[in-house]
Amino acid sequence: MKAAVFVRPGKIALEEKPKPVAGPGQALIKITTTTICGTDVHILKGEFPVEVGRTIGHEPVGVIDTLGAGVTGYSIGQRVIVGAITPCGQCHPCLDGHQAQCGGKAAGGWRFGNTIDGSQAEYLLVPNAMSNLEPIPDRLTDEQVLMCPDIMSTGFGGAESGGIKIGDTVVIFAQGPIGLCATAGAKLKGASLIIAVDGVSARLEVAKKLGADVVIDYTKTEPLTEIMRLTNGRGVDVAIEALGTQQTFESCLRALKPGGTLSSLGVYSGKLSMPLGAFAAGLGDHKIITTLCPGGKERMRRLLNVVASGRVNLEPMVTHRFKLDQIEQAYELFANQRDGVLKVAITP
Amino acid sequence: MKAAVFVRPGKIALEEKPKPVAGPGQALIKITTTTICGTDVHILKGEFPVEVGRTIGHEPVGVIDTLGAGVTGYSIGQRVIVGAITPCGQCHPCLDGHQAQCGGKAAGGWRFGNTIDGSQAEYLLVPNAMSNLEPIPDRLTDEQVLMCPDIMSTGFGGAESGGIKIGDTVVIFAQGPIGLCATAGAKLKGASLIIAVDGVSARLEVAKKLGADVVIDYTKTEPLTEIMRLTNGRGVDVAIEALGTQQTFESCLRALKPGGTLSSLGVYSGKLSMPLGAFAAGLGDHKIITTLCPGGKERMRRLLNVVASGRVNLEPMVTHRFKLDQIEQAYELFANQRDGVLKVAITP
Amino acid sequence: MKAAVFVRPGKIALEEKPKPVAGPGQALIKITTTTICGTDVHILKGEFPVEVGRTIGHEPVGVIDTLGAGVTGYSIGQRVIVGAITPCGQCHPCLDGHQAQCGGKAAGGWRFGNTIDGSQAEYLLVPNAMSNLEPIPDRLTDEQVLMCPDIMSTGFGGAESGGIKIGDTVVIFAQGPIGLCATAGAKLKGASLIIAVDGVSARLEVAKKLGADVVIDYTKTEPLTEIMRLTNGRGVDVAIEALGTQQTFESCLRALKPGGTLSSLGVYSGKLSMPLGAFAAGLGDHKIITTLCPGGKERMRRLLNVVASGRVNLEPMVTHRFKLDQIEQAYELFANQRDGVLKVAITP
Amino acid sequence: MKAAVFVRPGKIALEEKPKPVAGPGQALIKITTTTICGTDVHILKGEFPVEVGRTIGHEPVGVIDTLGAGVTGYSIGQRVIVGAITPCGQCHPCLDGHQAQCGGKAAGGWRFGNTIDGSQAEYLLVPNAMSNLEPIPDRLTDEQVLMCPDIMSTGFGGAESGGIKIGDTVVIFAQGPIGLCATAGAKLKGASLIIAVDGVSARLEVAKKLGADVVIDYTKTEPLTEIMRLTNGRGVDVAIEALGTQQTFESCLRALKPGGTLSSLGVYSGKLSMPLGAFAAGLGDHKIITTLCPGGKERMRRLLNVVASGRVNLEPMVTHRFKLDQIEQAYELFANQRDGVLKVAITP
Repeated sequence: MKAAVFVRPGKIALEEKPKPVAGPGQALIKITTTTICGTDVHILKGEFPVEVGRTIGHEPVGVIDTLGAGVTGYSIGQRVIVGAITPCGQCHPCLDGHQAQCGGKAAGGWRFGNTIDGSQAEYLLVPNAMSNLEPIPDRLTDEQVLMCPDIMSTGFGGAESGGIKIGDTVVIFAQGPIGLCATAGAKLKGASLIIAVDGVSARLEVAKKLGADVVIDYTKTEPLTEIMRLTNGRGVDVAIEALGTQQTFESCLRALKPGGTLSSLGVYSGKLSMPLGAFAAGLGDHKIITTLCPGGKERMRRLLNVVASGRVNLEPMVTHRFKLDQIEQAYELFANQRDGVLKVAITP
Repeated sequence: MKAAVFVRPGKIALEEKPKPVAGPGQALIKITTTTICGTDVHILKGEFPVEVGRTIGHEPVGVIDTLGAGVTGYSIGQRVIVGAITPCGQCHPCLDGHQAQCGGKAAGGWRFGNTIDGSQAEYLLVPNAMSNLEPIPDRLTDEQVLMCPDIMSTGFGGAESGGIKIGDTVVIFAQGPIGLCATAGAKLKGASLIIAVDGVSARLEVAKKLGADVVIDYTKTEPLTEIMRLTNGRGVDVAIEALGTQQTFESCLRALKPGGTLSSLGVYSGKLSMPLGAFAAGLGDHKIITTLCPGGKERMRRLLNVVASGRVNLEPMVTHRFKLDQIEQAYELFANQRDGVLKVAITP
Repeated sequence: MKAAVFVRPGKIALEEKPKPVAGPGQALIKITTTTICGTDVHILKGEFPVEVGRTIGHEPVGVIDTLGAGVTGYSIGQRVIVGAITPCGQCHPCLDGHQAQCGGKAAGGWRFGNTIDGSQAEYLLVPNAMSNLEPIPDRLTDEQVLMCPDIMSTGFGGAESGGIKIGDTVVIFAQGPIGLCATAGAKLKGASLIIAVDGVSARLEVAKKLGADVVIDYTKTEPLTEIMRLTNGRGVDVAIEALGTQQTFESCLRALKPGGTLSSLGVYSGKLSMPLGAFAAGLGDHKIITTLCPGGKERMRRLLNVVASGRVNLEPMVTHRFKLDQIEQAYELFANQRDGVLKVAITP
Repeated sequence: MKAAVFVRPGKIALEEKPKPVAGPGQALIKITTTTICGTDVHILKGEFPVEVGRTIGHEPVGVIDTLGAGVTGYSIGQRVIVGAITPCGQCHPCLDGHQAQCGGKAAGGWRFGNTIDGSQAEYLLVPNAMSNLEPIPDRLTDEQVLMCPDIMSTGFGGAESGGIKIGDTVVIFAQGPIGLCATAGAKLKGASLIIAVDGVSARLEVAKKLGADVVIDYTKTEPLTEIMRLTNGRGVDVAIEALGTQQTFESCLRALKPGGTLSSLGVYSGKLSMPLGAFAAGLGDHKIITTLCPGGKERMRRLLNVVASGRVNLEPMVTHRFKLDQIEQAYELFANQRDGVLKVAITP
């Protein structure tokens, strides 16, 4: 089968690999649609290390090809989705509710395209299939559900971890795919004033459609001054960080009311320091909560329900389409954020 | 009346002030016992700014002298305690559950010895008396309850904010008065393995009495190696920071399991940076929660109940006693942590 | 001034009363709009006892007439709203987060038209004004905010107490004003399948507009069979009871999945028994949570924000309008649920 | 092998059965110690139906005999404990945190001695072994950990579901094995006044040792009057029901403060009605939460830690010892609560 593998920093290439075989508890799915994530670009650039030859990708939609021993309740040919994070469900952390930290290693539940082969290929071997395969209702297309495995789950997770309550004011810093989903999530959770910040006007337009009441283009308006104006100097209840930089992290903390929550989704590199003034020297009853994409079939079931209900429509986020054969071209577009790309659909 | 006031950095002195008068909603209490806090030492050293002439101190035990208009349900001469934090109970943040952030300013609920005159004096004017005066049961002595207004409330708050569950493993970095109370709080909340870290063996002995199962003297043993050994490499569920330094903050984060909670009690100064490895680059589902001392009469009622039940006995923490006239001497001893001092009792 | 008072079971009449005077901590507001609640009908019928001569009503919109001593931060003539429940904010239960149970008596926070005079009058005396007066933004009309004091707060409270999560399935039994607001609240909280049950088709039409995905007319379809069909036999995550009868309570419990939550808003009379089968004999990890209307100015601030954001539009629920002089006529219409009445606006 | 099987109402008898064989995902353990539960007595009496021939018992301590395909990380001969409830960890309810309701059927996680053969036998087949086998530290004896699988987990669960906070007042109605564990759990969670109610003085003596501050013998003192006296008319924060009768359920509700929580552990039969006065007609912000014994290996790990720490010592609850051959005799003693029996240890 064909698979997009990490060759060296700067190079992800399509290679031929043997079709995997489903062992006990596993399932093999034939990929029908997948996509590229910002994290994959970090891998491409060598900023996030994976072993040479690893198939990349963690956002699979497909049909069941074969089921390993002990995998029951599914049928061959069934159309399924699998989360980016594949918890076993049976280790101590999973049973304790920390499914994304499966096995007790940091981010241990993130396997696809990281510690095992991923979804940018013709076939994908799914570990702990009983915990992870979720059937897709017939009436939903692949593209309608393509955001579920990662960015929808992550973005909504940011809103959930923020503990957003009815009537809250929420700011989301950065409106890339994850930030946009956090904006949609903030609306779903009952925030009554949602402020989205980015420097790309096209993204801010999408933010408005997904629930932002106010958008701030930071290239034109100083966000913190504007946020304080909008909240009468009160600050926001919840600030969601969706980029992974010192600046956005710090802006989130500065935007918070005393007692507020910083819900962090970004992957940080380099240095991260705490601005003590904004942190009230530790006396502000602040919460800083980081969230890795929730996975597992129950999470997927819930997200599919949200899509099916029409509450949130993320399909417009698929701005470009490629064949798996063209994946290097897709990476080139996506990594350089050209042509207003938000997400690409890759079909084998 | 006599009052210990901030004169200039390096100088807190006893001065004569007019006896205050209780306005509407206020109460005047005659102090019977009070104490000195580490924060007061920061004020003394000029590290935490207060205005010149401010009476210091936020840990009052006393009897009601006069009640202002509208203060009902109490009687003159009644023995009461008041928390270090005095929420109004009626502003938006208080009604939203953020009582320590009363008024919406960071640490806004902390008034005594900060924004209004404090308890190291013969009389103390209590704002929002209806929210803050709590009668003390006759059978409890002043010294038995002297830790309630601040360190017991703060230390227990650290255990509570950590969300400690039955069977959790908890480490507390630093075993000063606040850290010792956090150790006691961790036991009260059902932790089954409590690890206390400090460099002073006398404090570690007290830690054992208050609930530590294991103590680590960091001058002799590298704490993180030992914590990982004790937890079979798993890390702790909750790490409580009780000092306010980069080193203890960072050690807490490094000691945490993926998905764990850092409960921060310290007051930070200088710089605070996030060690990205320990922070799992933001992917570890970590929580960092800061807690300012919970106040108000309901909190005091609960803490008095804990004292009355004998669950926790903090009386041995009072290691030295002084008259109010000797308060400069008391500061000298306490600020230099001489003679094994933990807390001092000051009586007018 | 004129006031609608309870005369005897079956009789509420307009009487002349002296204009009240605001004492310390109180405010007097001139009512501009108020309404009638189902509870008022219970009072009218003698099913809920209040003393003879009590002014009825607990849903006030008005302007500040006078402020008592110690009430600061407001101005005469300011337009304000006050919740049906008026917590003091300063008693032990209030400080412990149980504001609706103010004072420690069951439903102790419900004073207006119950233990003190209410809002169906020209003037209303507001106790604990600092906790309870919330300014109304100029751009919102009286009728736009008229549902905030009680039914919006109660209905949303039912959704909040249910702990609704993104992707939940929720059923609401009864679509009177409270049930309709619970339906709107379920949508605000992120439920992805909302099922509304009632026997009046006009109410089911309103339910659809407020967020119901599916409506069940119980006069035509057996609700439990249909709920199980819609959930593939799984049951709902949360069932909200919004009527206060054995039948709706029992149907809620029968509709629940194991581990589900029954959020109860109704006022029960007569008998209430637990169907042991549906209760799984106590082994089903069920939660039954009752919620009295949350009050206080912070709650009102949040609800006004929801109205201002346009997230929820409850204005169409005002189906009829009366002058205070016509209030007996208004009761007659409302109590008999004639002419498709949902809520009436009463203006002095 | 020998196994105690349900023959007919009134008759549990030792029979010869084939030694089971561990299939994929399963493990066979050789029982070293087990015990009898009140629920087993209900089965014996025919009050809780199981099929004829079912091996009874759900509290196993043993050593691993064989491991089925796919069960890794354990070794033959390893000493393990398994909870009464055996969640798969991989179905939707398990992944959603409702492990005791595994599979989505009420009490679906309770399999042993109910829907599959149980532990009162020489060998026990453990389903979903990866989720359920927990190694026992060498230094703990079988009898020290024998309460973990059910009564300790259930009793502590009652305290946990009650949401007990530091300084809470808690009453526990009935001090059988479950109630005694709830008493110990209330102490572990930080309650400062624990009131235990029963009619057997020997049980009340054990209650004192496990954490009760006050015991009430209901044959001598009217509990509700005494509870109100002890709480100054306030009522308790949390009431734990540990018997499963109308009377104890109702007494719990009557003992609650407004806003309090009834944590229900009992298995109810017959009728259960809600006393509307105590329920405040649904306006008291009450919570009623039922809890089925939490299971799974993470729960067992935590409980073993509690035992290992010495926080709670339940070993004295083992009052009698029998060989498996004598199990009918053990049932006879236990069912009739003779000789002050609390729990029996059964060894094959």
